[in-house]
Amino acid sequence: MNPPAALRQITLIGVGLIGGSFALDLKRLGLVEKVVGIDLSRSNLDRALERGVIDEAFDTVNEDNIGAADLVLIATPVSTLSAICRSIAPFLKAGTLVSDVGSTKQSALEAFRDCLPGHLPYCIAAHPIAGSDRSGALAAQFGLYQGKKLIITPHGREDSDGLCRLESLWQAVGAETYRMSAAEHDAVFAAVSHMPHLLAFAFVHQILDHPAGQTYLKFAATGFRDFTRIASSHPAIWTDICMANKNSLLDLIGGLHAQLGVLKDILETGDRPALYRYLEEAKQTRDDWQANQPL
Amino acid sequence: MNPPAALRQITLIGVGLIGGSFALDLKRLGLVEKVVGIDLSRSNLDRALERGVIDEAFDTVNEDNIGAADLVLIATPVSTLSAICRSIAPFLKAGTLVSDVGSTKQSALEAFRDCLPGHLPYCIAAHPIAGSDRSGALAAQFGLYQGKKLIITPHGREDSDGLCRLESLWQAVGAETYRMSAAEHDAVFAAVSHMPHLLAFAFVHQILDHPAGQTYLKFAATGFRDFTRIASSHPAIWTDICMANKNSLLDLIGGLHAQLGVLKDILETGDRPALYRYLEEAKQTRDDWQANQPL
Repeated sequence: MNPPAALRQITLIGVGLIGGSFALDLKRLGLVEKVVGIDLSRSNLDRALERGVIDEAFDTVNEDNIGAADLVLIATPVSTLSAICRSIAPFLKAGTLVSDVGSTKQSALEAFRDCLPGHLPYCIAAHPIAGSDRSGALAAQFGLYQGKKLIITPHGREDSDGLCRLESLWQAVGAETYRMSAAEHDAVFAAVSHMPHLLAFAFVHQILDHPAGQTYLKFAATGFRDFTRIASSHPAIWTDICMANKNSLLDLIGGLHAQLGVLKDILETGDRPALYRYLEEAKQTRDDWQANQPL
Repeated sequence: MNPPAALRQITLIGVGLIGGSFALDLKRLGLVEKVVGIDLSRSNLDRALERGVIDEAFDTVNEDNIGAADLVLIATPVSTLSAICRSIAPFLKAGTLVSDVGSTKQSALEAFRDCLPGHLPYCIAAHPIAGSDRSGALAAQFGLYQGKKLIITPHGREDSDGLCRLESLWQAVGAETYRMSAAEHDAVFAAVSHMPHLLAFAFVHQILDHPAGQTYLKFAATGFRDFTRIASSHPAIWTDICMANKNSLLDLIGGLHAQLGVLKDILETGDRPALYRYLEEAKQTRDDWQANQPL
């Protein structure tokens, strides 16, 4: 694989862990000359400048900071993508790549189609699998994407050279890249990420709604801690993701109802061998998954 | 608080993490002269002897190893308690304390009442909250119970001096002791421990039952890892616990159905403020819990 050609300018909209870490590695690799950051938070921009994540900072888009970009990377909460696409539309130069990093991809393609129809061949939706409970420009770090997965979800009308350019930039910072349809992506991540988040929130809500819930929590230990860690995730980000992927989630909620129905029957009938088998199958699946994880 | 009087002999039935760690600390504190271990696994007994967890080893109960005990501590899976109580009944000396460490306490009291009716004043049900994914005699360790919680669930007919003696032994090894009814205990631990285990198993089972589940798992990351860690728990132990506490679990399954119903309505109607509020309330509860945990 040849290294990608260096870019003159990347414009990051939303300067945080995800976009900032991508920029840091590209700069270190000499794959970008200048990184421009646009963010609503002045203090976040100041930290990004101090840390060398970005070279110039703005609080709004304009002809210069968008017009001179080879790549505009939008790394803001999923629900803001449409508005941002509309705001950059007047300033985009022909051939400038526009990409995102959001956790739901059907909504991303919809935003690109609706808000940048004339620029669609250069709009590439992508999702790096590298979350963290840290956020903001200070969380940006070298090497974040080493060995991580990056999914590109083509809409079918992209410029193939543009898609390959974006893909090779992510590969350059260490990501393993995959391509799949946006619908498949959303089904996969609903199952392995969005649903566990929703379930963790629902489980904690069940305790808080119980009259004795606060007493119960006093006796919660390490199992509870790990199972509910993701219920401490950011509610605004997860409102966005759940709403954007609600069809997949509604399917999964139905499926979980069915699983709980099976368990209810097993418990009511006292069918011990069936319960053992059910738990053992789940344990095997989970152990196999764990055994295949990088250390 | 006065230190408890030293015991001449403790007999551990089931020599693993929980009973073995208790014995190690009592020996170090000079609170027991001799620890006798009874276990089905010869190799486990050999390791316990080598490590000094026990002083004598047997593969079955008999007049000597039970008759000479001041305390018989039963630390085996919940479902075996009745059979063990029946097996020790002929050998128990008047006044010998009998206790357990199981995760469900109504079932423990039932076993004591049914199988040791004449000895009931000296049967004390207890539950130390100190699980681990490690097990067996090699996992036994000093200090395991330091700062951990220990619940005693009186049945109302115990000898009060015997109950205090058992309580003071657990306090001596560092546990904070609590007393509550067995029904309350089972409701509390169904909510904060047994239900998350069942949910983690159900969630993993939903993925394994899906035709594309194996593909989905390839993209599972850290959120999935922590949320499902407890689905790698031992299926036999958890079959026991879930069956012994099935009434509490059936209530909680009903409650979770209701929570998922709320989320389904919110997603279907696209009520973004309601979803944000729901997630934010859960996050606040979980963050508050985490903030109150010892480091």
